Amino acid sequence: MRIPYEVMLKEFERVLLKKGLDEKTAYEAAANFAQTSLDGVYSHGINRFPRVISYIDRGVIDPKAKPLCEMQCGVIERWNGNLALGNTNAAKATDRACELAKENGVGVVALRNTNHWMRGGAFGWQAADKGCIVICFTNTMPNMPVYGAKDRRIGNNPLIIAVPRSSGEHVVIDCALSQFSYGKIEEYKLKGKNLPVYGGYDSNGEVTTDAGEIEKTWRVLPIGFWKGSGLSIVLDMVAAILSGGNSVGDIGQKIGEEVGLSQVFVAIDPTKLSSISEIDYTVDKILDYVKGSEPVKEDGVILYPGESSFKTRKENIEKGIPVIEEIWQSILEM
Amino acid sequence: MRIPYEVMLKEFERVLLKKGLDEKTAYEAAANFAQTSLDGVYSHGINRFPRVISYIDRGVIDPKAKPLCEMQCGVIERWNGNLALGNTNAAKATDRACELAKENGVGVVALRNTNHWMRGGAFGWQAADKGCIVICFTNTMPNMPVYGAKDRRIGNNPLIIAVPRSSGEHVVIDCALSQFSYGKIEEYKLKGKNLPVYGGYDSNGEVTTDAGEIEKTWRVLPIGFWKGSGLSIVLDMVAAILSGGNSVGDIGQKIGEEVGLSQVFVAIDPTKLSSISEIDYTVDKILDYVKGSEPVKEDGVILYPGESSFKTRKENIEKGIPVIEEIWQSILEM
Repeated sequence: MRIPYEVMLKEFERVLLKKGLDEKTAYEAAANFAQTSLDGVYSHGINRFPRVISYIDRGVIDPKAKPLCEMQCGVIERWNGNLALGNTNAAKATDRACELAKENGVGVVALRNTNHWMRGGAFGWQAADKGCIVICFTNTMPNMPVYGAKDRRIGNNPLIIAVPRSSGEHVVIDCALSQFSYGKIEEYKLKGKNLPVYGGYDSNGEVTTDAGEIEKTWRVLPIGFWKGSGLSIVLDMVAAILSGGNSVGDIGQKIGEEVGLSQVFVAIDPTKLSSISEIDYTVDKILDYVKGSEPVKEDGVILYPGESSFKTRKENIEKGIPVIEEIWQSILEM
Repeated sequence: MRIPYEVMLKEFERVLLKKGLDEKTAYEAAANFAQTSLDGVYSHGINRFPRVISYIDRGVIDPKAKPLCEMQCGVIERWNGNLALGNTNAAKATDRACELAKENGVGVVALRNTNHWMRGGAFGWQAADKGCIVICFTNTMPNMPVYGAKDRRIGNNPLIIAVPRSSGEHVVIDCALSQFSYGKIEEYKLKGKNLPVYGGYDSNGEVTTDAGEIEKTWRVLPIGFWKGSGLSIVLDMVAAILSGGNSVGDIGQKIGEEVGLSQVFVAIDPTKLSSISEIDYTVDKILDYVKGSEPVKEDGVILYPGESSFKTRKENIEKGIPVIEEIWQSILEM
């Protein structure tokens, strides 16, 4: 079953208005969920929507709250998300960082007391649409053991970096620091399939591709073992220091669920130093070279970060967004 | 054999002066090589020094050149490294980014036409000594296949992030995007030992810990497979766009050796938003929580990024810096 983008957008908007969001915020949030689904990231689009609504119902997300700037110094600002919706908070922070970058070359917004931003890559695409390079990251619940440990005390703290192209086919990496998300591990377990690469440790302490074994230990693997583990610690520090908000440990210990997160958005306007055609030339040159690699498999295709999102978007615009009927039905009934 | 820091510093300085560097630059470069050795990163300190001198002798590094600011807009600057020594160029860029951050909260310096910065972590420690958070990265020769490919067309593009502590025991991650460096793979091969985790592919296309097999295919593994591969592409783009300098592909195809690199230094002054005691409190809180993890091995110790550097530094200050006698002798004879 496929649903046209505009229909999905309207439906999300209707539910969010009913839950008490103002018109502008309801539209922006709905557009984020619909565009995320359009790009094929269903886990953080349509499939996540009911859970977000339940967070509003439980009072964990405040549908009437607005993010506010608390401190400003030069090109850096600290904002309080006031526990409003995470995706609209992050979109506001991205916008503001880009505004600062347009004025001064660079802008940094640190956001505390916010909620899950859904698809982090959305803010990469958003900044790139404004012609900006962006580096942004969020902390999370403790959901991964530090390298060499059993219990989960670091976050998978997704890191997003985006590079704009005038064609709109931006290069966007959206990269959690765990090799696989919990959702992906569960998906493989339910299908009875092995993960494509090692994703965690089994009960004997050996790395494994067996999703069921990983669910027993919950020792999921950071990318690059000690490297992703270290990156996670440092990104959490930067986010908590600049935002003045919760660290991964605070979220796990003081709050106990994934609420009250800390995020950082660094935007850079490359047109302060190069023309748009120079930027396009550099990106194309790098992509041509990389995509000219010899594939391991005869029919292998080398993809760059963001390429498959763009392809899925085009397909879903044409054919509609594929949905799981039960989920779509539940949204219609909200 | 162990050599006191001051003796090593003087010896490096003597050689660099003889090679034509001015007094200030010779001292700064010598201090970088000696401090890198002091921190235990011998591969980019004393053991690398003879190769750097050979680059000066071959005219690849210009001992008389100076980095110069070419463009400036708001808080972002583009510098030309003029093929001077890479470590002093990067130190200058770090200093300038921190200066801009002290004035405006954030500062970005993009540096083109520079040389290998030696130990990237050095610039993390340097910025943190000035009280700044820093995110910096460099591109390299094409030395790693993109995910799914056989031939090497992306760089291992080291990424450094540092967080300052008033004690000087900063948190610094210095993280190439390959799981292991070529030097480490060769070291394991010579010792006839297996790598501690998968480091590349064997002749059958399977991931392996066998360093000898990896040296046959040169298919080294990016951290997190497709994730490190994508990060590498995007960091190269950001470095080449902002600096206006060479991409990884340019370095491999136009130059053919690791010369004329592009680097980016983003410095943030966190004291614009928080007091030093608040910053220390946040860092300590995160480290206490993470280090309180339950180790996998009974006698396991959980280390944070930068912790072992600091320990080695203290030991080497006390006992002197361990050197390979032949290398030390060759430097004495320069």
